Amino acid sequence: MKAMLYYGARDIRFDTIADPTIIDDRDAIIKVDRCAICGSDLHIYHGQGFSEETGYSVGHEAVGEVVETGSAVRRLKVGDKVMVSAAVGCGACAPCLAGNVNLCLNGMAQCYGLGQRLGGCQAEAVRVPAVDFNAALVPDGLSADQALMLTDSLATAWFGCRNADIAPGKNVAVVGLGSIGLMAVESAFVMGATRVFAIDPVPERRAIAESLGAIAFDPADALERIKDLTKGRMVESVVEAVGHDVTIASALRMAARRGTVSVIGVNQDRRFEFPMSRAFNMGLTFRIGTCAVQEQWPELIPLIQAGRLHPERFISHVMPLSQGAEAYALFDAKSVGALKMVMVP
Amino acid sequence: MKAMLYYGARDIRFDTIADPTIIDDRDAIIKVDRCAICGSDLHIYHGQGFSEETGYSVGHEAVGEVVETGSAVRRLKVGDKVMVSAAVGCGACAPCLAGNVNLCLNGMAQCYGLGQRLGGCQAEAVRVPAVDFNAALVPDGLSADQALMLTDSLATAWFGCRNADIAPGKNVAVVGLGSIGLMAVESAFVMGATRVFAIDPVPERRAIAESLGAIAFDPADALERIKDLTKGRMVESVVEAVGHDVTIASALRMAARRGTVSVIGVNQDRRFEFPMSRAFNMGLTFRIGTCAVQEQWPELIPLIQAGRLHPERFISHVMPLSQGAEAYALFDAKSVGALKMVMVP
Amino acid sequence: MKAMLYYGARDIRFDTIADPTIIDDRDAIIKVDRCAICGSDLHIYHGQGFSEETGYSVGHEAVGEVVETGSAVRRLKVGDKVMVSAAVGCGACAPCLAGNVNLCLNGMAQCYGLGQRLGGCQAEAVRVPAVDFNAALVPDGLSADQALMLTDSLATAWFGCRNADIAPGKNVAVVGLGSIGLMAVESAFVMGATRVFAIDPVPERRAIAESLGAIAFDPADALERIKDLTKGRMVESVVEAVGHDVTIASALRMAARRGTVSVIGVNQDRRFEFPMSRAFNMGLTFRIGTCAVQEQWPELIPLIQAGRLHPERFISHVMPLSQGAEAYALFDAKSVGALKMVMVP
Amino acid sequence: MKAMLYYGARDIRFDTIADPTIIDDRDAIIKVDRCAICGSDLHIYHGQGFSEETGYSVGHEAVGEVVETGSAVRRLKVGDKVMVSAAVGCGACAPCLAGNVNLCLNGMAQCYGLGQRLGGCQAEAVRVPAVDFNAALVPDGLSADQALMLTDSLATAWFGCRNADIAPGKNVAVVGLGSIGLMAVESAFVMGATRVFAIDPVPERRAIAESLGAIAFDPADALERIKDLTKGRMVESVVEAVGHDVTIASALRMAARRGTVSVIGVNQDRRFEFPMSRAFNMGLTFRIGTCAVQEQWPELIPLIQAGRLHPERFISHVMPLSQGAEAYALFDAKSVGALKMVMVP
Repeated sequence: MKAMLYYGARDIRFDTIADPTIIDDRDAIIKVDRCAICGSDLHIYHGQGFSEETGYSVGHEAVGEVVETGSAVRRLKVGDKVMVSAAVGCGACAPCLAGNVNLCLNGMAQCYGLGQRLGGCQAEAVRVPAVDFNAALVPDGLSADQALMLTDSLATAWFGCRNADIAPGKNVAVVGLGSIGLMAVESAFVMGATRVFAIDPVPERRAIAESLGAIAFDPADALERIKDLTKGRMVESVVEAVGHDVTIASALRMAARRGTVSVIGVNQDRRFEFPMSRAFNMGLTFRIGTCAVQEQWPELIPLIQAGRLHPERFISHVMPLSQGAEAYALFDAKSVGALKMVMVP
Repeated sequence: MKAMLYYGARDIRFDTIADPTIIDDRDAIIKVDRCAICGSDLHIYHGQGFSEETGYSVGHEAVGEVVETGSAVRRLKVGDKVMVSAAVGCGACAPCLAGNVNLCLNGMAQCYGLGQRLGGCQAEAVRVPAVDFNAALVPDGLSADQALMLTDSLATAWFGCRNADIAPGKNVAVVGLGSIGLMAVESAFVMGATRVFAIDPVPERRAIAESLGAIAFDPADALERIKDLTKGRMVESVVEAVGHDVTIASALRMAARRGTVSVIGVNQDRRFEFPMSRAFNMGLTFRIGTCAVQEQWPELIPLIQAGRLHPERFISHVMPLSQGAEAYALFDAKSVGALKMVMVP
Repeated sequence: MKAMLYYGARDIRFDTIADPTIIDDRDAIIKVDRCAICGSDLHIYHGQGFSEETGYSVGHEAVGEVVETGSAVRRLKVGDKVMVSAAVGCGACAPCLAGNVNLCLNGMAQCYGLGQRLGGCQAEAVRVPAVDFNAALVPDGLSADQALMLTDSLATAWFGCRNADIAPGKNVAVVGLGSIGLMAVESAFVMGATRVFAIDPVPERRAIAESLGAIAFDPADALERIKDLTKGRMVESVVEAVGHDVTIASALRMAARRGTVSVIGVNQDRRFEFPMSRAFNMGLTFRIGTCAVQEQWPELIPLIQAGRLHPERFISHVMPLSQGAEAYALFDAKSVGALKMVMVP
Repeated sequence: MKAMLYYGARDIRFDTIADPTIIDDRDAIIKVDRCAICGSDLHIYHGQGFSEETGYSVGHEAVGEVVETGSAVRRLKVGDKVMVSAAVGCGACAPCLAGNVNLCLNGMAQCYGLGQRLGGCQAEAVRVPAVDFNAALVPDGLSADQALMLTDSLATAWFGCRNADIAPGKNVAVVGLGSIGLMAVESAFVMGATRVFAIDPVPERRAIAESLGAIAFDPADALERIKDLTKGRMVESVVEAVGHDVTIASALRMAARRGTVSVIGVNQDRRFEFPMSRAFNMGLTFRIGTCAVQEQWPELIPLIQAGRLHPERFISHVMPLSQGAEAYALFDAKSVGALKMVMVP
């Protein structure tokens, strides 16, 4: 089949790879209808992936149709339209069954498209392990694009806002306005934020945040402006959606006394110079981690169904998978209005 | 001075009463700029008040100006524009200092305008005990009308929604669409509700709820419609904003498994036939009580300042206090579009 | 096989009934090693069960050994020693998979031994539906007796304490000192209660509560004594473990402002005269419902393993199942020191 | 008067300093009955205090008697026996009034004995600002020693456990077994911990932790032993009570997936190499800060009164203040059994 394959830094190509096959009796093969590029895929694109391998298929966001199932698959069946969780658990232990695949007792928590171990979703088809738990029917009333955003990015934005302890009446800052950051802005309002300060160097992205109701700043002004607008108290909840040391450090400076800083940007640095003295004096909470996608669905699905969240509006491009290399290049050049890149095999 | 005085059932008159004076050194006298009629004032209007007395001034919602202070008043001063909390505490014990006057250790939790003990707010002036804790400056950027809604009704609506355990992704029902019920609809959305089912027999009130985003029903259809729309699961959070046995019973029937029913309507009945069997089988939580107004302010003030809550739009009438008797009559006849009645002394 | 069968009021007999068989491919047959009588079984014993049928086997607490499994059973296997949850869910919907069988979307939440629908556990064997979710291996280090207490009674006591919002520093009252009430006393201390007031008319039961650290009262004195000891503030968390109207009413009188009353006694009355006026003035929370047994296990198992909870010490009798009729009679006569009755088939 | 004065590294002397006087009308002068040395005083003792000054009095833990009050003091009066909170707020803003002096809107959150600004408590007398809010009556039934432990160290231990998200059924690790660490062990059990792993290089301290029910390890073995005992899952809640980079790093390695690490040791390092990669993969929460002492009192006072917490048993020495230099030297040499050093002026 055709898929996007990683061959080296800035060399992700539309190429041929073996078709996926059923390995375990709880697997299913999903024919991909739509897939997407995640901000974290750019780490791979930059040659800073999690694996030393090359020639593997990439991507971890897909919706599609079940075309083959193992003998022990019970909840899904051939023909079902499904969304595939980017977070993969064993589907047999108690945390997985409860949707919290990150606590998988069998240490199976993993992701598609990070190496040879589990095929990528930017492909014509993908094998989904323990499919009954790692995928779900596209919910009633949701478009394929909305479901696609549920496979990782909206779930991550929501989880990042939860991790920031956002609650009614609080001020929020979101650092980084890629599609996940913008969805964090939208999510923060649903959680009751009073004001959302949205920070990004790209004016077009700030304009979108403002259209969502946020007050947007360039990073150069952000600290000073937030200080002014909060009369020096700063912000109770900060969501960092970039993952660089400099933006994390900036997020920590935005936090109010007893505030919480939540990092959802994938940070590849092994060490970070944590400002212990400020954190101690301000009594901060710092929270970081990947999202158990399935765990967020029970809250997010009804919110999309009811029209309170519109993740599809952060899709900037829909392109054929055969133009995937171009999609990556566009996405990597952040200034051109590229937010969420969707590809159709 | 002039004030609205209770003389008997359906006989609340604009009449003369002695001016209020400082009794305790922490008191202040507030010249009332605007006051309002609360739904619970109708209990008094119907001759079912909390006191056997007559000739006392009524009302417990006011904003105005400090015109005299006792010697121990420290935070407020003459000339300050203030909003007066309908809930009055001693202002000296730990719960009062923390804003939770309902837990007042000195048993002082009380209210204006329920008898001779504490004068009413529907008057040219009112004595406020422990004024530093039972009143606050009108917050920056808030209109007098917005502040007036904070003295009781919006705080009660918000508290009632909190008591219903509303959270992002939940379905909510609000029974009774007076001004408090309508503000509960608005509050529920701020707290992240997906759908809000709004129930009232008056079509005009349902139309307002729909303009806020709710799905509105006549009480005759509500249970069946909610059952349909939730596929039989019913509603996680129910806010009852009427206070009659029949509406409370109805609210209890709307609750989903492990759902919560919050009653904010003032219930004068001594006993209620609680449906123990349904509550047991469904695992319900039932919560009732009056609002510690001051406790809600830290969340509500920034939400109004940020334009997320607009309590002033539920004011239907602004009339001179001298026409207070007419205001009561209009308010009592619920079908004529009367929501919140504001009076100007 | 032999089992305890219900024939009418005070007529539960050791008699012969057909062996259980596999009906669904997710069923298992469990050979019962030990079973127990629950306080709620006395409703059946008194002829006030949930069914009009006779001749059915009773009981819903058992530990035993898997002797036969349906073809779709995956986690348990023949020979496994298991504890059977008294709460039975479909084991396929999201709430069931997460352990919360009470929210079973397929409406399967049910219990053993309430009629012909699902056989009783006071038997030589029992069919367990969806066994992978409705039973679990006896945890490492737990005795059969400890596991038996986890099948319902300790889980219910713990759930009742959770429902009462018990937290460190709070005063607690437990009304009714059967084995569940006594385990609620023990659980309340594990949850951080300062003082636990334990109320029962039987002096022997009060003595056991005192040995656990509680302050015990006869119901006749309880209200007055609690008032004295709390300086009139009463109790933040009340657990009602009887289920009679009179004890529920008493529990509601013990609650402090903003306190919570949790009812875990099974109440068969259709209606209860709820003291709406007191509840309104005090701002009470009232919570009732049955326990999703499986949901409590992740907290309870390590607490027993670590020696913080000792449910086995509330077992007062271990008798052969053939003497089950005598066990029922002893249990029904509450004064003789009968707490938890265990029977061995 | 006499007091312990800081003159330089390892030179804290019993010497003469001016008597404290009333400066603000809300001040009081407290004659000190008992005071104590805190672990954080050793930073000063080592010449690494928060101030460049010398000749100032030190210490921030005291109980004593009110001997003089400013004209605006209302709740306390001359002759009252009081405990003085180590955390000092303005006592006028909403957070201070609610007990949370760390959120003091007037930026007054400070501490005694850190320089000339606010006199030390290791003295014959001390000036307490806003005494109505920064001190409280010694609660009924508490000894002076118990109250002394409430002025900082027990409150900090409790707060650190709260910050670690300890809850019933969780495993806990406490790193560092000084008096605060040992009180964290005791507190963790009150909060429902199953097992508490207690880590310190000093065998005598480990023996005390074991007497409290903990499983104690030398730091050299801790990680491996915890890994074994938790089957590789590690610990949900970690309390770090030392404040060194190496112990904080060790605490972060002990945390389970989605675990929380709470640092209560005062960390003087400006930067800390945070293990971002492990934190990201495990989804950790990291929380640090000083304790709003007054905020902990409503929970702690009844727990001591009820005999559930015994902070006085961690007092190892009671010495005259005149031997304060010797007390500091003993405390600094950790191996000699010195835990909490109390001094009597």
